[in-house]
Amino acid sequence: MAKSIVTMSRLGNIRNGAVVIENDKIIDVGKADEIKRKYPRYELIKALDCIIVPGLINTHTHIAMSLLRGYADDLPLHEWLEKWIWPLESKMTSRDIYIGALLASIEAVKMGTTTINSMYHYFPDYNEAKAISEVGLRGVISHVCFSWRKEHDFKQLDDLIKNWHGKNDWRIRAAISPHAPYTVDPKYMVELRNYADEVNKEAVHDYEKAIWHIHVAETREEAKIIEKNFNVKVDEGVVKYLYDLGVLKEDTVAAHCVWLTDKDIDALKRTNVKVAHNPISNLKLASGISPINKLINEKIVVSLGTDSACSNNLLDMFETMKIAALLQKGVTLDPTVIPAKKALEMATIEGAKALNWSSQIGSIEPGKKADLIIIELNKPHLKPFYNEFSHIVYAVRSLDVRDVIIDGKIIVENHQLKTVDEEWILKEAEKVKDKLIEKLSSD
Amino acid sequence: MAKSIVTMSRLGNIRNGAVVIENDKIIDVGKADEIKRKYPRYELIKALDCIIVPGLINTHTHIAMSLLRGYADDLPLHEWLEKWIWPLESKMTSRDIYIGALLASIEAVKMGTTTINSMYHYFPDYNEAKAISEVGLRGVISHVCFSWRKEHDFKQLDDLIKNWHGKNDWRIRAAISPHAPYTVDPKYMVELRNYADEVNKEAVHDYEKAIWHIHVAETREEAKIIEKNFNVKVDEGVVKYLYDLGVLKEDTVAAHCVWLTDKDIDALKRTNVKVAHNPISNLKLASGISPINKLINEKIVVSLGTDSACSNNLLDMFETMKIAALLQKGVTLDPTVIPAKKALEMATIEGAKALNWSSQIGSIEPGKKADLIIIELNKPHLKPFYNEFSHIVYAVRSLDVRDVIIDGKIIVENHQLKTVDEEWILKEAEKVKDKLIEKLSSD
Repeated sequence: MAKSIVTMSRLGNIRNGAVVIENDKIIDVGKADEIKRKYPRYELIKALDCIIVPGLINTHTHIAMSLLRGYADDLPLHEWLEKWIWPLESKMTSRDIYIGALLASIEAVKMGTTTINSMYHYFPDYNEAKAISEVGLRGVISHVCFSWRKEHDFKQLDDLIKNWHGKNDWRIRAAISPHAPYTVDPKYMVELRNYADEVNKEAVHDYEKAIWHIHVAETREEAKIIEKNFNVKVDEGVVKYLYDLGVLKEDTVAAHCVWLTDKDIDALKRTNVKVAHNPISNLKLASGISPINKLINEKIVVSLGTDSACSNNLLDMFETMKIAALLQKGVTLDPTVIPAKKALEMATIEGAKALNWSSQIGSIEPGKKADLIIIELNKPHLKPFYNEFSHIVYAVRSLDVRDVIIDGKIIVENHQLKTVDEEWILKEAEKVKDKLIEKLSSD
Repeated sequence: MAKSIVTMSRLGNIRNGAVVIENDKIIDVGKADEIKRKYPRYELIKALDCIIVPGLINTHTHIAMSLLRGYADDLPLHEWLEKWIWPLESKMTSRDIYIGALLASIEAVKMGTTTINSMYHYFPDYNEAKAISEVGLRGVISHVCFSWRKEHDFKQLDDLIKNWHGKNDWRIRAAISPHAPYTVDPKYMVELRNYADEVNKEAVHDYEKAIWHIHVAETREEAKIIEKNFNVKVDEGVVKYLYDLGVLKEDTVAAHCVWLTDKDIDALKRTNVKVAHNPISNLKLASGISPINKLINEKIVVSLGTDSACSNNLLDMFETMKIAALLQKGVTLDPTVIPAKKALEMATIEGAKALNWSSQIGSIEPGKKADLIIIELNKPHLKPFYNEFSHIVYAVRSLDVRDVIIDGKIIVENHQLKTVDEEWILKEAEKVKDKLIEKLSSD
């Protein structure tokens, strides 16, 4: 029972509405008084001055990197990576990755994110999948691949697919992640495409497919770097180069897509590749501003990501929606582009489409998984109340999320985590940081 | 006692520090153990896993407009103003303005803002000054002037100056606000300059001066509109036009400054006019992006504002700092511009300079007014902790502000307002909204 159910489906917004959940699924949605008559004996979560929204979907991040949040900022890209981020990352053990992923997962879920798509180094013993599984988050976990470690990569991918793809009744899925066109040579790129096709050949439902998750066209220099590294021609654009390799398919999530040629846009469209737009990271690293308004007009699926806490420095999807909506208005000088409803679509149903998951998540309607968040409105910054979409995108703060339900299970109740020991994770994260800094200084 | 005192003064950041407050003033700042020895009998506010920061200063807003938060968004500017905002505003009584200002004040203070500079219509009975006075906020309240109501304006200004300028031991000051160069004709503009000079002629301290608060160069079309409205030449820029009128002085807060010529920048510099940068509003209304990095390089004081909740839709200065820092990086393609520390300066000490108030506020140091905020760090999104500035600008959420002290008085304690009845204000705001909508529909 809530002031409004924002379904993001053909059901629209239902004022004084209610959602009925049985096990992991939504079985009914409607006016609260009717629902109360139809289901008199169901346990009730009161949300009178609240709105209920589908859980938010973060389609590009690197969750373990939350351990490096605020370690280095405001530096030129190469100095930042080579002198700061990579040296510290090189000290991380698989357990550190697991702790970082736990930290990020509890941050994300408390801020209303129910599904993440994370690209990072996978290890069989401790990994991001274990962390999100324990927290109760839904997500796609990858192993990130580089030309310099092909043998290692295939071993990790095999383990990831075998042990995690489909785990927890498909709450957890796997991704094959070529890092980027400038770190994965063309031959290896094709091998990773074939690997995914092999995994996906017997998939029946959309969500049974592994995702092919890659960074694309993030910086202006990328095409030149690929040309230099692999002695190839990338004169028509980075996406077009991948298209010509034949590696782009509808299972592909292309993160960033900042610097695109018209041929790139055409290639995205032809292949039904999904874009993960990361406006905060793209600004913070001074990569540029992706022309998402153009992509949306071309009917390309554009979803939203936070990127890692190193370049954001949060996994806050409310902030991401707002900045995505504002930025396109500012650069196009048109206040009507990316209206609030569109921004919320990008963070919900379009995010679900991006992960080939829209048969199960992304909206509140009967038959879908019960992934939803309850937002409190009884706050000065959310008064008065006129319009759901405006409030959710332009005024709600991520910390206004009161309850989070994933797969029908209450993960956050009145701002408190129900699944893992938050205090322990916070302490452990500080300890790991201290240990990493010590290791670095003793080098 | 806190993990770190971020003083924004020559004292730097003091890890394991403490601040000593007596009445309305800071009397000492230092290491917590020394402070405890020196002042054994003082009452202690525990803030062990917290950082203490100067209260944030919002140098451009229209607080009463919080009543219209989310009423209309994503529309072309003129349709938005003429069909939506102005018709609803025309129904507002002075008491409605007071309720809106109360709502905005409690929103702002709970999010860590301790000083505001608000431009709105003043009425003697109910007004924004009464609201901020009751909440305990520090601020500058104006009456906004238009050519079409000169006589009314001077009456209101006289009342405002007489009753509020210097009130509450100078916690409240007044501003003369010509609305904008396209709504105030050149003759009236000069009269309003002379009016301010008359008010300010006997001021001894910086904060005894009334502020001259004006919108300048917000949209690309502004110069042309001024030329059309007043049959004048504005071919060298809007600021230069005001400079040639002789109305710009160091008491001037120029809000927006998005579209500037080199001559405009030179005029800002010569006159020591202070800029109030409103990045969120400028994006949302698609006005454009102010070249603040250039202004800062020219040593012009650039402070931060939220603008009203109609075009933002919040008064969240944490969000404003982050977007100000990110946006300049994204448009200059240089990740080193507006580093985190600079963004926090803009929201604290530069904000104080913008309001001619830096002798009393904007930093934590002995002798200054005790305006400070305590931020909790014991949250997933603020772990681990490396760097104060990075956390404050890129990771802290406005709702992480636990306590707010203004003029030595605790206004917010553990997220609870101590000065006014929050529940009553929230209900009243909804009632006023319902009444306004009803008035409109019965037109």
